[in-house]
Amino acid sequence: MNADNIRKRIRSGEHQGTTSGLSGDKVQANLVILPRKYAFDFLLFALRNKKAVPIIEVLEDGQYESRYAKDSDIRTDIPKYNIYRYGELIETVDDVTSYWQDDFVTFLIGCSFTFEQAILDGGIDIKHIKEKKNVAMYKTNIDAESAGAFHGQAVVSMRPFKKDDVDKVKEITGRFPDMHGAPVHVGTPGDIGIANMSQPDYGDAIAIEEDEVPVFWACGVTPQNVALNAKPDVMITHLPGHMFITDINNDEFKD
Amino acid sequence: MNADNIRKRIRSGEHQGTTSGLSGDKVQANLVILPRKYAFDFLLFALRNKKAVPIIEVLEDGQYESRYAKDSDIRTDIPKYNIYRYGELIETVDDVTSYWQDDFVTFLIGCSFTFEQAILDGGIDIKHIKEKKNVAMYKTNIDAESAGAFHGQAVVSMRPFKKDDVDKVKEITGRFPDMHGAPVHVGTPGDIGIANMSQPDYGDAIAIEEDEVPVFWACGVTPQNVALNAKPDVMITHLPGHMFITDINNDEFKD
Repeated sequence: MNADNIRKRIRSGEHQGTTSGLSGDKVQANLVILPRKYAFDFLLFALRNKKAVPIIEVLEDGQYESRYAKDSDIRTDIPKYNIYRYGELIETVDDVTSYWQDDFVTFLIGCSFTFEQAILDGGIDIKHIKEKKNVAMYKTNIDAESAGAFHGQAVVSMRPFKKDDVDKVKEITGRFPDMHGAPVHVGTPGDIGIANMSQPDYGDAIAIEEDEVPVFWACGVTPQNVALNAKPDVMITHLPGHMFITDINNDEFKD
Repeated sequence: MNADNIRKRIRSGEHQGTTSGLSGDKVQANLVILPRKYAFDFLLFALRNKKAVPIIEVLEDGQYESRYAKDSDIRTDIPKYNIYRYGELIETVDDVTSYWQDDFVTFLIGCSFTFEQAILDGGIDIKHIKEKKNVAMYKTNIDAESAGAFHGQAVVSMRPFKKDDVDKVKEITGRFPDMHGAPVHVGTPGDIGIANMSQPDYGDAIAIEEDEVPVFWACGVTPQNVALNAKPDVMITHLPGHMFITDINNDEFKD
């Protein structure tokens, strides 16, 4: 199915789950929508934390069609949205048309699904995709570089791999520097402040077998964590794992 | 002389001319200072026109010390500043302390002096440096991608090279993708809307001999051209060719 059709299925409510593994070679994007008064601080935050928050596109005040997705509507074409008010998650909805403001600025942010496809193409299995789960994401003790109101700790996504595959996985993901790139950490979760692997902060837990190591990547959910501190009066994001599907090919972001 | 000492000489008024060829292997930066209300549009303009406006650093509201230049003061450490009001160049001064506003956001932007050093290191002469002139810069008919209030045409810098050297020059400058990178045009000036090579819009004219070709690069003076349309109530820039000298090495921006 092409990206346009997937977006239509999402818009109609036919597809409401995670978009992991759904769009083949098309780029999927994290979403952050903020009123214009927060837009400079947030764009600067993104620029200063490129690895976690690589900007693909910015839609200016009130715009909701992505130039990278034909006939798209950012207000309806994501399976689930999180609505935050003053940093608190208030509700999760499947359409944000009724929340729309003319001063909303929309940020589309690179997503690790891009390099996941490259890992699969490299002949290495990805466990959560095989088990039809959402990827596990954790808050860390790694400080993001702050910008204006936006400050706090980075979020990482985690995938377990066989020890022998780790070098190849590092190499493959390193080819996508604008899509989170190489891992930020490999091995002991406690080193980056993760106490309990069985309780991810976002997404689904996944078992790590004895012959596997957890591998951690910078994650586009970082803005949702940082918003807890910035407390903007309103901020809309995707529900982690439930992404915006564009018409661009993943390979366009290959180094 | 180290960068710190050059900045001190500039601050004291001892050095007032162009900084071309002055700082050896240190990164020199273009300057744009704008009130915060224009900062989002400008940062987005930069992001959308990375080749012309590669951001090295953003100093938030009221800050004037660069993290990349020890004990620096952005208000005094540039030989000459242009003051624009509503898009018009009002005056050129050597100190902007008395113009300073607490809501000023400062943008430091990559400069072609970085790759010039690499060209020289590659054993190829650069004519305007040899003749102790400022580089020639021209307005073009190449549309920059607009963002909010900022829209207009790109500015290019031009250097003549012997025909046989052009490929090597392309290759060397292409290694600095975040410092304007490879040329945007080689040859006929009219192709990019330049009518009269003997009258550059910024900098000094330079003769092009029969065995030479003009080579054009995206230029960090583009924001000054675009400000003519955006008409911010105040905007401060460097005088083209009179740059901010940092403590970072050019090689850090090599691909």
